[in-house]
Amino acid sequence: MSIWKSLRTVQELNSLHQATLVQHLGIAFTEVGEDFVRATMPVDHRTRQPYGLLHGGASVALAETVGSMGAGMCIDMQEYQCVGQEINANHVRAGRSGLVTGTARPVHLGGRSHVWSIDIVNDAGKLVCTSRLTVAIIRRGALGV
Amino acid sequence: MSIWKSLRTVQELNSLHQATLVQHLGIAFTEVGEDFVRATMPVDHRTRQPYGLLHGGASVALAETVGSMGAGMCIDMQEYQCVGQEINANHVRAGRSGLVTGTARPVHLGGRSHVWSIDIVNDAGKLVCTSRLTVAIIRRGALGV
Amino acid sequence: MSIWKSLRTVQELNSLHQATLVQHLGIAFTEVGEDFVRATMPVDHRTRQPYGLLHGGASVALAETVGSMGAGMCIDMQEYQCVGQEINANHVRAGRSGLVTGTARPVHLGGRSHVWSIDIVNDAGKLVCTSRLTVAIIRRGALGV
Amino acid sequence: MSIWKSLRTVQELNSLHQATLVQHLGIAFTEVGEDFVRATMPVDHRTRQPYGLLHGGASVALAETVGSMGAGMCIDMQEYQCVGQEINANHVRAGRSGLVTGTARPVHLGGRSHVWSIDIVNDAGKLVCTSRLTVAIIRRGALGV
Repeated sequence: MSIWKSLRTVQELNSLHQATLVQHLGIAFTEVGEDFVRATMPVDHRTRQPYGLLHGGASVALAETVGSMGAGMCIDMQEYQCVGQEINANHVRAGRSGLVTGTARPVHLGGRSHVWSIDIVNDAGKLVCTSRLTVAIIRRGALGV
Repeated sequence: MSIWKSLRTVQELNSLHQATLVQHLGIAFTEVGEDFVRATMPVDHRTRQPYGLLHGGASVALAETVGSMGAGMCIDMQEYQCVGQEINANHVRAGRSGLVTGTARPVHLGGRSHVWSIDIVNDAGKLVCTSRLTVAIIRRGALGV
Repeated sequence: MSIWKSLRTVQELNSLHQATLVQHLGIAFTEVGEDFVRATMPVDHRTRQPYGLLHGGASVALAETVGSMGAGMCIDMQEYQCVGQEINANHVRAGRSGLVTGTARPVHLGGRSHVWSIDIVNDAGKLVCTSRLTVAIIRRGALGV
Repeated sequence: MSIWKSLRTVQELNSLHQATLVQHLGIAFTEVGEDFVRATMPVDHRTRQPYGLLHGGASVALAETVGSMGAGMCIDMQEYQCVGQEINANHVRAGRSGLVTGTARPVHLGGRSHVWSIDIVNDAGKLVCTSRLTVAIIRRGALGV
């Protein structure tokens, strides 16, 4: 049985993010698999810190982006919405150029919250950042966490 | 005794971030106090998610930016550099418009690592996000964490 | 206006924890203030790691204990219960002997979740550990997060 | 090539923890695999919270225990020691009885720090808690992080 209840295509995910942080950073969704969501992000003037390396905050922005979209596609979006509650990340290797690729996979899909794990790798497939996202699932119309 | 060993002005901090994520998101350093570093970030097409709210990843990017600069100014930058190791954040209130303001304060300034606490508030002064950053302090020339 | 909706005395908090981890580790609630909950924990064979220092896991156990009790006392416990969702902690200084003292204070008291900050200090008042706890608030009878 | 530089048997790991938190909570090392360390912990009066469920702090104590031992066995312990810096955990399912089993696997083994991932499951093999531990690797004799 598929985990996806509100599946979207890569094209739909990218359209949804026009005029957002995601588009502004050059993040592009590239694949929705059986149990994962994947997107790439360039390492360039949009995502670097002063020493020319990938800014850790860009990695977390990528992580929260793919994790949130994964969570959203696992719920019935007519009735529910998801709200990011907590995110954490370890930066383990510098990103210097090219693209990094973030892949989000579910750790726990509960009725009230999800936990997603996100790994970000560089062009050589080496781990740059590992992150975990906690998402609250709330009824549409309800406000706040 | 001041915590700052490599103090920079707000102008210097902003110049340093030309052609980086920080400038690209519209983040602007606004104050370096006795024991804090502060910057603002707009809530607009550069930092929003699809529902028009501040993207959680933008908050973390702001948090890591002010925390990293705080850490860097507390070390002798001729000899040492700092590397972000871990960051975590709770998103507690939606950001909708205007500016958010992030303030980084040291929790622990050790010889090998720092811990910084970063709070982000909206225009009304209400907490949007609270974050904690762990930074490794390493000798210049040393690579990796 | 007080934050406490289900206030308990220190004696009640300690009674509640008979035959639990809390009692087993020697944790004792010592104060419920206007906006904080405090407990002490011994640094001895019950809480040390092999090198004779306070085990980081003991610190987190103390943090989750005071944070959870704080959260529980801020909700109407006839109708709601709280469930720990996420906890994180930085260990910044070794605990060697005597007592450590953990104090939990609310960062965000929302309708569906709380965020609590917990600092643990040693006998000299120096910070040993800083922690943040996310708690889900759910209706009694509801199961799981 | 093995990741272990200071391998110990399960018996040695258990002996090492006499008169510590680990023994006091009933934690027992059960397996050291090619790239993992595993231990069990009882869900009983030593590890429960007032509602009879596994205390989240006990889960984190188990996580930090197996992660730290994994880290220690991956370094040359004649020259180096490891110090827990940061730990985070999501509690995703209640532990009610029997044993829980924690397994630590390396995410990143760097020269100055390690990142370990720890999953804790119940008797039915269901995930109870997922955790990530950041460990600083420092020369013996050096103090503090």
